[in-house]
Amino acid sequence: MKTILFLVHEVYEDLELWYPKIRLEEAGYKTIVAGAEANAIYSGKHGYPCKAEISFDQIQEERIDGIVIPGGFAPDKLRRVPKVLEVIKQAHEKKKLIAFICHAGWVPISAKILKGKNVTGTSAIKDDLENAGAIWHDKPSVTDGNLVSSRTPLDLPAFCKAMLENLQ
Amino acid sequence: MKTILFLVHEVYEDLELWYPKIRLEEAGYKTIVAGAEANAIYSGKHGYPCKAEISFDQIQEERIDGIVIPGGFAPDKLRRVPKVLEVIKQAHEKKKLIAFICHAGWVPISAKILKGKNVTGTSAIKDDLENAGAIWHDKPSVTDGNLVSSRTPLDLPAFCKAMLENLQ
Repeated sequence: MKTILFLVHEVYEDLELWYPKIRLEEAGYKTIVAGAEANAIYSGKHGYPCKAEISFDQIQEERIDGIVIPGGFAPDKLRRVPKVLEVIKQAHEKKKLIAFICHAGWVPISAKILKGKNVTGTSAIKDDLENAGAIWHDKPSVTDGNLVSSRTPLDLPAFCKAMLENLQ
Repeated sequence: MKTILFLVHEVYEDLELWYPKIRLEEAGYKTIVAGAEANAIYSGKHGYPCKAEISFDQIQEERIDGIVIPGGFAPDKLRRVPKVLEVIKQAHEKKKLIAFICHAGWVPISAKILKGKNVTGTSAIKDDLENAGAIWHDKPSVTDGNLVSSRTPLDLPAFCKAMLENLQ
C-alpha cells in the first residue's frame, strides 16, 4: 500500500487538505499528516481542525510515495522549514508525486525544483512561480512529470484525478 | 448528466457536505445545493461556508436524480421543513438515491421512510433510528435499496463508494 504525505500548518485551506486526503484513502492509499509538532491540532482557514500525526522531523522520505501540499496561508510557513524542503527535494529527485494547489506552489519554489516546469496555482502567486522559472498555465490542473498542480478549491476534482493518474 | 441535490442548513458538518459534493462532481455528476434561502451562505460546524444555490421551495423533485443529506446539527433544522420532507418522500417512492450520514438520519426519520430498512448513523441517534422502525448496523456504510447511510466523517470514503455504486 502506497503512503502519501500531507503537510499541514496553521491556516491551511480546509478542503484542499481534506478532499485529497479522503479521496486518496477512498482509492486505497495510506495517508499521513505531518506538522511542526506531532499530535498538535492545526486550524484550517475556515476552522476545520487537522491533527498532525507526526512532526516534520519524523518524516522518513524513503517511506513515502508522494507528497500533497494544501494551500491557504500554511505554505508561507511550510516553505521556511528546512526539513520540509529537503524531503521535497529528495522525493522530487526520485520522481515521486509532488502535488500542490493554490498558494502551495510557494513550497516547491523554495525547494527550488520548478525551473522550466509547467505548473499552475492561484493567480496571486503567478509572478512568484514565473520568477522561479516555472511556466504558469491557467488550467484546472497541470501535470509535468511527477509534478501536479491546481489553482483553487474549485479545481479539486481535476486535481485529484490528475494526482490519481500520476500515482498509477 | 445526473443531478444530485444537497440539503444545507446552519451547522452542517463541513466535510460531510463538501467531500461527497466534490466527489460526485469528479465522477461527472451535477450537484445543486438547496437551503432555506437562495444565495444565503450557511456556516459549517467548523466554519466552512456553503452557499445555497436555490431555496427549498425552488426544488423540483422531477429534475433531481438523488439526494445527499450531510450531518452536523443541520438535520435538526432540515427535518422541520415540510418541502424537504415531501421531496424526500417523492424521491424515495421513485427509488432515487437518498444518502444520509451521521445525524442526517433524523431527516428520513421525519420523512417516515425508514420502517424495516437497514441503516446506519452516528450512535447518538441509534435509538431514534430504531424507534422509527429501522435496523441500525455498526458499519462504515449500509445500503438498502436506494438508501445509503454512514456513521461519521471517518466513513466518507465508504459512504461515497456506496453512493457511486448506487447511482450506476
